[in-house]
Amino acid sequence: MPENLERNDENVVYVGKKPTMNYVLAVVTQFNNGARNVVIKARGKSINKAVDIAEIVRNRFLNDLKYEVTLGTEKIKSEDRESNVSSIEILLKR
Amino acid sequence: MPENLERNDENVVYVGKKPTMNYVLAVVTQFNNGARNVVIKARGKSINKAVDIAEIVRNRFLNDLKYEVTLGTEKIKSEDRESNVSSIEILLKR
Repeated sequence: MPENLERNDENVVYVGKKPTMNYVLAVVTQFNNGARNVVIKARGKSINKAVDIAEIVRNRFLNDLKYEVTLGTEKIKSEDRESNVSSIEILLKR
Repeated sequence: MPENLERNDENVVYVGKKPTMNYVLAVVTQFNNGARNVVIKARGKSINKAVDIAEIVRNRFLNDLKYEVTLGTEKIKSEDRESNVSSIEILLKR
């Protein structure tokens, strides 16, 4: 097994402003390339898109996947103040 | 212990269009009234608000809470077609 497939941090998909299906494809591709785990990470308003991605992957492409969800809060620093933003990590695993 | 506090289904907060802090207050109030578990439920674009609510409750009000997250997909029927919407349930427990 190639070394990089054993490392979780190689298999992270960060959710941003692209269409949902782009990220679905990214996740499915990683599993098809042999990954055992893929983590979908999102913050703020992208969190609902992360859940959509996980659900579409599980329901339409890879029905045998299990998942674990971790919630968090991150501090965002702008020019003169600090604000909190929620985050989600959805670990999909074979 | 009053019978209703043993029943999980009494302690559900459905997230809609009200301000985030309204739901935070609802969750905290249920715990202060003796609930051992409170479930935050949301669908679609309210999912990120549900995560905000859970994080604010845990970080600012009740630091000892554990959580479990369940993802799902629900079918929404409109006049002539059916569409899917993602859902989240965040179980907060003492």
